[in-house]
Amino acid sequence: MTIATRELERVVREIADEMSARPDRGEVAGYIPELARVDRNAFGLVVVDDAGNVAAAGDCDVPFSIQSISKVFTLTLALGKAGDRLWQRVGREPSGSPFNSIVQLEYERGRPRNPFINAGAIAVTDLILSGHQPRELLGEIVRFMQFLSDDDSIGIDEAVAASEQRSGFRNAALANYMKSFGMLENPIDYTLGVYFHHCAIAMSCRQLAMAGRFLAHLGRHPTTGLSVVQPERARRINAVMLMCGHYDGSGEFAYRVGLPAKSGVGGGILAIAPGKASIAVWSPGLDANGNSYLGRVALEALTKRMGWSVFGA
Amino acid sequence: MTIATRELERVVREIADEMSARPDRGEVAGYIPELARVDRNAFGLVVVDDAGNVAAAGDCDVPFSIQSISKVFTLTLALGKAGDRLWQRVGREPSGSPFNSIVQLEYERGRPRNPFINAGAIAVTDLILSGHQPRELLGEIVRFMQFLSDDDSIGIDEAVAASEQRSGFRNAALANYMKSFGMLENPIDYTLGVYFHHCAIAMSCRQLAMAGRFLAHLGRHPTTGLSVVQPERARRINAVMLMCGHYDGSGEFAYRVGLPAKSGVGGGILAIAPGKASIAVWSPGLDANGNSYLGRVALEALTKRMGWSVFGA
Amino acid sequence: MTIATRELERVVREIADEMSARPDRGEVAGYIPELARVDRNAFGLVVVDDAGNVAAAGDCDVPFSIQSISKVFTLTLALGKAGDRLWQRVGREPSGSPFNSIVQLEYERGRPRNPFINAGAIAVTDLILSGHQPRELLGEIVRFMQFLSDDDSIGIDEAVAASEQRSGFRNAALANYMKSFGMLENPIDYTLGVYFHHCAIAMSCRQLAMAGRFLAHLGRHPTTGLSVVQPERARRINAVMLMCGHYDGSGEFAYRVGLPAKSGVGGGILAIAPGKASIAVWSPGLDANGNSYLGRVALEALTKRMGWSVFGA
Amino acid sequence: MTIATRELERVVREIADEMSARPDRGEVAGYIPELARVDRNAFGLVVVDDAGNVAAAGDCDVPFSIQSISKVFTLTLALGKAGDRLWQRVGREPSGSPFNSIVQLEYERGRPRNPFINAGAIAVTDLILSGHQPRELLGEIVRFMQFLSDDDSIGIDEAVAASEQRSGFRNAALANYMKSFGMLENPIDYTLGVYFHHCAIAMSCRQLAMAGRFLAHLGRHPTTGLSVVQPERARRINAVMLMCGHYDGSGEFAYRVGLPAKSGVGGGILAIAPGKASIAVWSPGLDANGNSYLGRVALEALTKRMGWSVFGA
Repeated sequence: MTIATRELERVVREIADEMSARPDRGEVAGYIPELARVDRNAFGLVVVDDAGNVAAAGDCDVPFSIQSISKVFTLTLALGKAGDRLWQRVGREPSGSPFNSIVQLEYERGRPRNPFINAGAIAVTDLILSGHQPRELLGEIVRFMQFLSDDDSIGIDEAVAASEQRSGFRNAALANYMKSFGMLENPIDYTLGVYFHHCAIAMSCRQLAMAGRFLAHLGRHPTTGLSVVQPERARRINAVMLMCGHYDGSGEFAYRVGLPAKSGVGGGILAIAPGKASIAVWSPGLDANGNSYLGRVALEALTKRMGWSVFGA
Repeated sequence: MTIATRELERVVREIADEMSARPDRGEVAGYIPELARVDRNAFGLVVVDDAGNVAAAGDCDVPFSIQSISKVFTLTLALGKAGDRLWQRVGREPSGSPFNSIVQLEYERGRPRNPFINAGAIAVTDLILSGHQPRELLGEIVRFMQFLSDDDSIGIDEAVAASEQRSGFRNAALANYMKSFGMLENPIDYTLGVYFHHCAIAMSCRQLAMAGRFLAHLGRHPTTGLSVVQPERARRINAVMLMCGHYDGSGEFAYRVGLPAKSGVGGGILAIAPGKASIAVWSPGLDANGNSYLGRVALEALTKRMGWSVFGA
Repeated sequence: MTIATRELERVVREIADEMSARPDRGEVAGYIPELARVDRNAFGLVVVDDAGNVAAAGDCDVPFSIQSISKVFTLTLALGKAGDRLWQRVGREPSGSPFNSIVQLEYERGRPRNPFINAGAIAVTDLILSGHQPRELLGEIVRFMQFLSDDDSIGIDEAVAASEQRSGFRNAALANYMKSFGMLENPIDYTLGVYFHHCAIAMSCRQLAMAGRFLAHLGRHPTTGLSVVQPERARRINAVMLMCGHYDGSGEFAYRVGLPAKSGVGGGILAIAPGKASIAVWSPGLDANGNSYLGRVALEALTKRMGWSVFGA
Repeated sequence: MTIATRELERVVREIADEMSARPDRGEVAGYIPELARVDRNAFGLVVVDDAGNVAAAGDCDVPFSIQSISKVFTLTLALGKAGDRLWQRVGREPSGSPFNSIVQLEYERGRPRNPFINAGAIAVTDLILSGHQPRELLGEIVRFMQFLSDDDSIGIDEAVAASEQRSGFRNAALANYMKSFGMLENPIDYTLGVYFHHCAIAMSCRQLAMAGRFLAHLGRHPTTGLSVVQPERARRINAVMLMCGHYDGSGEFAYRVGLPAKSGVGGGILAIAPGKASIAVWSPGLDANGNSYLGRVALEALTKRMGWSVFGA
């Protein structure tokens, strides 16, 4: 173990300790019971560096609902399948609106602003669903996550998926709205079914940090050496993550943390320090924009101490 | 001269040659005669690297109207004077709207989304004007540019400023609107006067690339070694540039170029490769979002060839 | 037959003749085949005056899809069942937006602006559905129309209803969206099922003019003398018709015609001259706001010649 | 004096008494001191019937600032000068937004939705200003009011006008914004100067009710028998008043009162019962939409007792 690795482990433990002591934790998502009952005090942090060393602290092996973080991986699959044709269906600009806003869709005639707001992620899901059965596609997504994480135990939390489906009227509104503009190809129930299920994938911080490695390393999967995506594509996914990964709090996140990252309403954040590390943090309490409150605070501390901001070190 | 420097010079010349040959150049801004009559075929590119070497090509010493690029420097001044109090007046989120939109101001009660859209830059100008006479503040801004560029010849193009003032009804609407919410402190004519004049500063690519060095080097002015801003502040200005520097084309710019940058309607772009280089490019033809069309294309080529994207090299 | 009645009959025939000769007829709604194949040259006009005299011309006995005109009658039923409680679910202000806009719903948190835009009519349908089976409620609506028109032959065009249901993604978006704010009580499929079916009621101009009599006569059903609604309620329904009955063309309609009226995308308009007459006109070609083009022109001619504008005679 | 006149006088006195006793009075406009200091308990009501009888009660001879009610008269002048050309500058649809909203102007490129929201009234003022000096036009407007009211004592409250001008940033924003789309012809200061001054005309309920007579009587000035506007134009002005006269509370006003009417932020309302009466009411307390609260309540009582609603009697 190198000195740098020991230093990283020390910083990760230090931050986890600091976060555990903080009383300000935001509000746990309450729109479905499965998320509402998650322990507000849970906190996990895992960093996988460029040498493959893993620094982990807190609840780093507790699976949580990755929710919108899954959108990074469906975007990756969609770019692989459709290439730049994807961008006819969805833009890549920040939305300037909440994650579930429908206003912009009316002004821009059913084309969502980016793949990370709900409407955009539904459009991406619809694109990769074409020509497949929902179950088949879901299997593919889960296997992709397992491959990226080197961990076959990753799966979908069916209770979460079922609960989302029961209460997902806002997403159904978005899907029907896009469909009315001819922007979705598949039956809405199929597309939403896959969407709700891939958002319900459960992963630990360790699994998530492992899964993100290819984005930190120009698209290469470190374990196998295989190219998951071309280097340019990895850079571009990182760009979309930085610009749009925290909804209408993306500017704030870039300002404070300075890393490409994607949050989920389950309280997880996947962050990428290009060339340096893949990072996953989990704290279920959310801020007003629906992003993990302590997750962001922890990442701010981490980038500052490690000098990892993309904006200058 | 090192091999790296020679390589950089070669790349810069190469790109300038490629750009000169391209027929697709966008449309020159036509809203005032002083901008409309600028040569559509002009092209300049200057890179100042971390060792202070300067690679320059094309019309690199022709002064042009820096327009909104000046907003990077007034933001820097404002953060120096007001610190984080600035953010009570203006946000730091992408706007999801055109540069001169007034819609968002109504929904967010006179607080602009970021310091780089027109409304936000007017609010920043108003903040630093308080306690000063317009002429005094303008002198300070110009001297700041001269200091950063090591070049005392930089000045304001009075014809441009006068022309902007005559036709600036949209900006007057934004200023009056913010004033109606009590978000401006000074007489509107004073604030707009300073705003129109600092946008009318004329600089060459060489001067602009020199002026941007402190942002590439953690806030330090390379010539004097003085700290212009603290390292964290330099990173944060870079973050705001990446998120908001190209209006509603910021996502596209991040996706293609991957550098913090600010464009101006005069066709200039200042881009920062943190830790590596300060870059200025100029091509007067604009794209639909009001950003230099070939300027962006040139920067895309440059970051690709030099491996300078903040999203992975 | 009185002189006044003969005069009315002459005017009605005259207008029908003029309209038949006009080449400018607007565009027939094309979003479902059942509407698209309607004869663009059809034209019917029927006036029932306060004495019960009927002046009819053109295709006055051809049934057409009344579409949104049905919303006048579901509003009447809803006010009878829920009284002023209805207004918690829906406003009574003009929308300033197209009939199927979803933007306003986001800003006003799921409460539609009035009962005549699609979202508002869906909310009204949902309100009267509570406690009933869809089929039961539909039966009640149809019997209400038959009673008002003194005509038991009125029914639903099932082909139209089925076609609407197949393509009704925009309405499904509106319904899901309101549901996400807790503004709908029943399963969306039930509410939309009833909505699509009552819009698919087929009636002739004669039947429609008969059905509207109670609104011209302070709520009284002339044939039976029964009170359909209280006089104040009849006035208020007329007020909502004038303010909101032609979507974002309501101001234009009031300006030109000056009568409370409700249009449907099938090309029908029901207009009320309070104290004087109930009027139905049908011409399938629509203007840009989705209202019958020649229908409005005919009503403008009629009110002018008869001196029936509510704004002064 | 006829029985009908005595009955009207009784109703008017009765309502004035009821209103004086009510504790709920809304909030007096506080944005300029001249309006803020008006007595919240003032109440006046005057009705001039078709025979020229005047029924008056309460503070019926106290002048108040007519504010936006003046827009009815500038619209009348503008239609006289420009005819239907006026409608190229301004629409005639309800806005679905607050009186001073700027959002719609952006979406509809500087053309206000109707002549009664602030932007629309500024556009109308600009239209009639062309070819005149501000002072000249103001003289004409005042003389028009004096002629209509048969009262040469009507004038402008210069203190109100000056105060509005000092604080009128929102209106200056609207004017500059329209000017940026080329929708205003005159210097902004001139147009706004006239606008602020005609809004500052001071009149009593008696003067105002007299001034409105031509709208109740097909455009004819009862005293002189002169035609102020053609009958069709009078009807159309009434239509615009009903649709747009109470901003985003126009639907509510039509629903409750059922008369064409225009409110002002000074607490006055001019209402027209076509063919029957011209009515002015004044109570300075406003509701959430900026319309006189008790003024509306009083008019609701009046139309109900007199059977004057245009929607059925």
